[in-house]
Amino acid sequence: MKRWFWVATGIFVASSALFAQESAEMTKTLSVALDTVWVLLTGLLVFFMNTGFAMVEAGLARAKNTVNILAKNFIVFALASLAYWVIGWGLMFGDGNGFMGLTNLFFANGGVDEGYSAISWTQVPFWAKFFFQLVFAGTAATIVSGAVAERIKFLSFLVFSLILVAFVYPIVGHWIWGGGWLQQLGMWDFAGSTVVHSVGGWAALAGVLLLGPRTGKYRADGSIQPIMGHNLSLVTLGGLILWFGWFGFNPGSTMGVGDGKAIAHIFVTTNTAAIMAILSATITSWIIQGKPDLTMLVNGALAGLVAITAGCAFVSVPSAAIIGLVAGVLVVLSVITFDKLRIDDPVGALSVHLVNGVFGTIAVGLFAENGITGAETGNGLFFGGGMTLLLHQILGVLMVGAFVFTVALVVWAILHKTVGIRVSREEELIGLDLGEHGQEAYPDFQGFLTK
Amino acid sequence: MKRWFWVATGIFVASSALFAQESAEMTKTLSVALDTVWVLLTGLLVFFMNTGFAMVEAGLARAKNTVNILAKNFIVFALASLAYWVIGWGLMFGDGNGFMGLTNLFFANGGVDEGYSAISWTQVPFWAKFFFQLVFAGTAATIVSGAVAERIKFLSFLVFSLILVAFVYPIVGHWIWGGGWLQQLGMWDFAGSTVVHSVGGWAALAGVLLLGPRTGKYRADGSIQPIMGHNLSLVTLGGLILWFGWFGFNPGSTMGVGDGKAIAHIFVTTNTAAIMAILSATITSWIIQGKPDLTMLVNGALAGLVAITAGCAFVSVPSAAIIGLVAGVLVVLSVITFDKLRIDDPVGALSVHLVNGVFGTIAVGLFAENGITGAETGNGLFFGGGMTLLLHQILGVLMVGAFVFTVALVVWAILHKTVGIRVSREEELIGLDLGEHGQEAYPDFQGFLTK
Amino acid sequence: MKRWFWVATGIFVASSALFAQESAEMTKTLSVALDTVWVLLTGLLVFFMNTGFAMVEAGLARAKNTVNILAKNFIVFALASLAYWVIGWGLMFGDGNGFMGLTNLFFANGGVDEGYSAISWTQVPFWAKFFFQLVFAGTAATIVSGAVAERIKFLSFLVFSLILVAFVYPIVGHWIWGGGWLQQLGMWDFAGSTVVHSVGGWAALAGVLLLGPRTGKYRADGSIQPIMGHNLSLVTLGGLILWFGWFGFNPGSTMGVGDGKAIAHIFVTTNTAAIMAILSATITSWIIQGKPDLTMLVNGALAGLVAITAGCAFVSVPSAAIIGLVAGVLVVLSVITFDKLRIDDPVGALSVHLVNGVFGTIAVGLFAENGITGAETGNGLFFGGGMTLLLHQILGVLMVGAFVFTVALVVWAILHKTVGIRVSREEELIGLDLGEHGQEAYPDFQGFLTK
Repeated sequence: MKRWFWVATGIFVASSALFAQESAEMTKTLSVALDTVWVLLTGLLVFFMNTGFAMVEAGLARAKNTVNILAKNFIVFALASLAYWVIGWGLMFGDGNGFMGLTNLFFANGGVDEGYSAISWTQVPFWAKFFFQLVFAGTAATIVSGAVAERIKFLSFLVFSLILVAFVYPIVGHWIWGGGWLQQLGMWDFAGSTVVHSVGGWAALAGVLLLGPRTGKYRADGSIQPIMGHNLSLVTLGGLILWFGWFGFNPGSTMGVGDGKAIAHIFVTTNTAAIMAILSATITSWIIQGKPDLTMLVNGALAGLVAITAGCAFVSVPSAAIIGLVAGVLVVLSVITFDKLRIDDPVGALSVHLVNGVFGTIAVGLFAENGITGAETGNGLFFGGGMTLLLHQILGVLMVGAFVFTVALVVWAILHKTVGIRVSREEELIGLDLGEHGQEAYPDFQGFLTK
Repeated sequence: MKRWFWVATGIFVASSALFAQESAEMTKTLSVALDTVWVLLTGLLVFFMNTGFAMVEAGLARAKNTVNILAKNFIVFALASLAYWVIGWGLMFGDGNGFMGLTNLFFANGGVDEGYSAISWTQVPFWAKFFFQLVFAGTAATIVSGAVAERIKFLSFLVFSLILVAFVYPIVGHWIWGGGWLQQLGMWDFAGSTVVHSVGGWAALAGVLLLGPRTGKYRADGSIQPIMGHNLSLVTLGGLILWFGWFGFNPGSTMGVGDGKAIAHIFVTTNTAAIMAILSATITSWIIQGKPDLTMLVNGALAGLVAITAGCAFVSVPSAAIIGLVAGVLVVLSVITFDKLRIDDPVGALSVHLVNGVFGTIAVGLFAENGITGAETGNGLFFGGGMTLLLHQILGVLMVGAFVFTVALVVWAILHKTVGIRVSREEELIGLDLGEHGQEAYPDFQGFLTK
Repeated sequence: MKRWFWVATGIFVASSALFAQESAEMTKTLSVALDTVWVLLTGLLVFFMNTGFAMVEAGLARAKNTVNILAKNFIVFALASLAYWVIGWGLMFGDGNGFMGLTNLFFANGGVDEGYSAISWTQVPFWAKFFFQLVFAGTAATIVSGAVAERIKFLSFLVFSLILVAFVYPIVGHWIWGGGWLQQLGMWDFAGSTVVHSVGGWAALAGVLLLGPRTGKYRADGSIQPIMGHNLSLVTLGGLILWFGWFGFNPGSTMGVGDGKAIAHIFVTTNTAAIMAILSATITSWIIQGKPDLTMLVNGALAGLVAITAGCAFVSVPSAAIIGLVAGVLVVLSVITFDKLRIDDPVGALSVHLVNGVFGTIAVGLFAENGITGAETGNGLFFGGGMTLLLHQILGVLMVGAFVFTVALVVWAILHKTVGIRVSREEELIGLDLGEHGQEAYPDFQGFLTK
C-alpha cells in the first residue's frame, strides 16, 4: 500500500508542481501582454495628439496660412519618427555617460533589447518601448510649430525639427529619463513637463526671437493689432483631442499597469488639473478682458495638463486641483505678458508649454508626497520635505533651459544665415499657403476672405 | 530511504503550494489590472463624447453662435467634474437611504474605498470607479447645452449645469445605480438611457419651455421658419465621434471584463441598434421629407444608441435591431412633432435623448432575456416575463421624469427671475459669439455671412 | 506518525493541485479576456476610420457636394453592417468549400461559435470576432465612396455597397482568410492590402470607368482642369484619424495579444511605412510639382499604410521603411497617371487603395522573413526564399482583381441600365447636396461660394 501511495503522491506532486509552474509562466506572459497593450494603446493616444496640435494651430492661424500649418504638423511627425529611429533613441536610452547614450546608437539597434539599462524597468517588448518614446519625441517637435507659425519657411522648419528630435530632445531625455545626471541627482519629471513641453517651449522661444513678430502685429505707435484665428471650431476640436490624448501621455508613462492603482490615480490628477485650469483661466479672462474668451478656455485646459504632467504620479488629487488653478491664471497672464514684450506667439505655445512646463516641474518640489503611487520622490516643500527636492527641480529647469535655448538659438541662427528662416514680406501678405504650397485650404470660399 | 523521501516530498509540496498561492495572487492582481485598464479606457471614450457633442451642437447652430456653443460644451465638463468631485459622487454612491447617499459626501472622500457598498461589485481601484462615473455625469450636463442653444445666457447655463451635476443627476443615479429605491424595486437601466439621457432630456425640456423658441423660428402666421445648422461636416464628425464613444459608454458599464462574452455582446447590440436606426430614420425622412436628410441620419444613429443604452446587456442582437428600427422612426417623428408643438430644440436633443431615453428604458421591459449576459433582470413581456419588469421600467421613467422636470423647472425659474436666462433680442440677432464672448468663430469669413 | 503525515500530505497535495488547477483556469479566462479587450478596442479603432474616410473625402470634394459625401459615408457603414450580419459573415467564415462558406450562412448563425473553423484559431468570443470582421467589411465599402464622388446617384451607391459587402467582399475574404483556395495555396495578406483595400479599389475602378469623369474635369482640348477640395483642414483631420485607426487595423489583426511581441512589432512596421511614404511622397511632389502639396502628404501616409497592411507582421522594420518609400513615390505617380488616362478619381482612392494594395501584397513576396512574428510564410525573394511566395502573391492579386472587377462591372452596369448611376448634368452643376438631399453643408456661407 505504501509503495503505490508514494508513487501516486510523487506523480501527483510532480505534476501539480509542473502545473503550478506552467501556470506561473502563463501568468507572467499575461502580465507582459497586458502591459504591452497598455503601452501601445496609450502611446497611440499620444500619437493622436498630433491631430489635436494640427487642429489647434491651424484654427488659431489665419485662413491663408492653414495649409502650411497642417503640412508642417503632418510632416514633422514623419521627420521626428525618422530622426528618433536613426539616432535619437540611442542617444536617449543607450547606455552611456551622464550626458548622453553612447552604445547601440543607430537604428534603435535593430530592435535588440540589450544595452538600454535605463529603461529595462518596464517589461514590455522592445518595439513597444520604442513606439511609446517615439510619440513623445514627436510631441516636442510639434510644439515649436505653433509658435513660429505664419512666417517660418517650410524647409527651415523641417531641418530644425530634424535636429531637435535627433539630438536636442534625446540628450535632455537622457539626463532625466535615460539614467543621466539629473536623474541621478534626484530630479523628477514623471511624464515630461520639462523633458517634452519645456524642451519644445525653449526651442520655440529661440525661434520666435530670431524670427520676429508677424507683419502688422505690433505697430509703430506701440499698439497691438490682435490677429484672430480663422476657425474656433477647429481650435476647440483640437483642444479636446489633446486633452483626450493626454490620458495616454500621463497614465501611459507608467509603462505598465501594476495593480491599476497608479494609473487610476493619474487619470484623476490629470483631469482635475485640467478642469481647475479651465475654470481659473475663464475667470481670469472674464475679469481682465471683460468676457470669457474661448481660446483662453482651451489654452487653460492645455496649461493645466502641461503643469500636471511632471507631477501627476507624485501629487494628490487636491494638490492637482491647486496646480491646475495656478496654471489657468498663469497662462492668461503669460499670453498678455508675451504680447506686451512683443514676443509674437500666434497660438500661445510659449504660455502653455514653456511657462507651465516650468511651473509644473517646480510644483513637484512643492506638492510631492513620497510614495503616493509608489515612486520614492521624497516629499515636497509643502509636505514637510524641505528644500531638497525643490532645488533639484529648479536646477533641472534651469539647466535644461540653458542647454536647449542655447543650442536652438545656434541652430536657428545658422539656418537664418544660410537658407533663411522667414518667408518674404510678399509671401507673408498673400499667405504661406500660396507661397509655400501653391494651394489654398478653402478654395470654394477663396474670393471672400477678409484681408 | 523513506525519511528523505518524506522530507523531499514535504519541501516539494510546500514550495509547490506556495508557488501556486503566489501564482493565484498574481492572477488576481492581473485580473484587477485588466479591469482597471478596461474601465479607464472606456471611461476615456465617454470623455471623448464631449468632443462629439461639441461638434454636433456647434454644427447645428448658426455660425454666429458657434463660439458660445463650443465654450459652453468645453466648460460644462469642467464644472461637472468639479461638482461631481465635491458632492455628486457622495450623493450618488455614498451609503445612505433609498433616496440619496449620506456618508462620505464630500470630495469623493479623498479616494478612500470604504463607504460605497453599492459600487463595491467592481474590483477596480477607487479612482477608476470615480473617473468612469464622472464622465457619465458630464454627459448628462452636455445634453442640456444643445437644446437651449442660440439664446441662453452663458452664466445661467453654467449655474444650472453645476446644480444639475451636483444634486439632480446624482440623486437619480442613486435611485437606480447607487442602491436606491428603484434599484431595490427591480428597475434596470444598464448604461443610462434613463439615468443619463432622459435626465439630461427632462432638464433640457424644462429649460426650453421657459426660454421659448429662437426669434424668428415660429411666425405669427403659424408657419415654421427652418433654421439650418452652419456646418454639416462638423455635425457628421461629431455624430461619428459620439458613436465611437458609445462603445465606451455601453460596454464599459460592465466595469470589468469577466470572460469577455458580455462586452463582446454589448459591442454588437450597441452597433446593431445604431445601424438599424440610421436605416429606419433615413427611410422615414425620405418618405416624409422627400429626400434623405443628413441631420436625420446622424440623429438616427444617436437615437438608436440612446435607445439601446438601457438594454444593451439585457437583450439579444435581433432585439437590438428591432429597438434600433423603432428608435430611428421615433426620432424623425419626434423632431417634427416638437416643431409642431413650437418647442424649439435647435439640435434635436429632446428627440434623441429624452424620447429615446424613455423608449429604450421601456424596451427593456419588452425585450429583456433573463441572464443573457449574466444579469438577473427577469424576462420582458415579449419573452414570457409578463408585465412585472415592464411596469417597473415605466414607473422608473415616470418618477425620474417627474423629479427631474420639476426640480429643473424650479431652478430655471429661479435663474429666470434673478440673473435671467435669455440673452437680449439684440444680442440674439447679432449672435451670442459677439454678445457673450466678444469674438467670432470664423473672422476671416466674417463680412460674408448671410444674415 | 507516518499515518498522519500521509493524510496531511495527501490533503495538502490535493488542495494544492486543486489550487493550481483553479489558478490555471483563472489564468486561461484572463487570457481570453485580455484578447477580447484587444480585439474589441482595435476593432473600434477600425470603426473610427469611418470618420477619417468621411473627413478626407468630404474635404477633397467641392463644398456643394459635401452633404452627399458625408451622407454616403455615414449610411454605408450601416448598410455594410446589415449585409455582413445577414449574409456576409456566413459566406466568409462559414465552413464550406474553397470558393465560399456554405454552412451557418444567415444572421451570423445567432452568435453560435461552431461552424467557423477557419477563424477558430482566435480564442475570443463569437461576437468579438464578428465585430472585428464587420468593421473591416465596412472599410472596403467606404473606399468606393471617394472614387465615385461628386456624380454618383445616392440610391445606386447604396445598392452597390449592399451587394459588395453581402457577396463580393466575403467571397474574396473566404479565399484568403476563411480557409479558401488562396489561403490553402499559401498566399499571405495579414491585414488586408488585398482583401480590403484592393477589393475596394477594383470595385471603385469599375464604377469610375462606367461613370465617366466629372463634368469639366477633362477638356476637349486635352487639358486637365484641376478641381480642388473645398477644405484641407478636414482632409488633414481625416488623414490623421485614418492613420490613428490603422493602428487598430494592422496590430488588431493578430486577434490576440500573445506575449505582446507581435503587436509591438506591427505598431512599428506600420508607423515606419507611413512616415517613409510621407517623406517620399513629399519629395516626389516637390520635385514634380515644384511645391510640396498637402494632399500628397496625406495620400502619401495612406499609401504607406495600405502598402504595409499585407506585410506588417511578416517583414522587418527596415523592410517596412523601404516599402513605405516606394509607396510614397507610387501614389504621386499614380495620381498623375490616372489623370493622364482621364480616369477621374476625386480623392485619389485608386492610387491609395488599389495601386498600393496590389504593391503591398506583392511586397510580401519580396520582403517576407519566415517566422519574424511567428507566421510560417516562408521567405520572400529578397531574403532567399526564391519565387514561390512571390508567385502566390501575384496570383492572388490577379485572381482577386479579375473576380472583383468583373462582378463589380456587371453590378454597376445593371444599375446603370436600370435606376441609373449618374446624376443629371444640372444636378451635378448645382451640386449633389441640393439635388440629392435638399440641403447645403454651409448655409450661412451659401451666397458666397465661388462657382
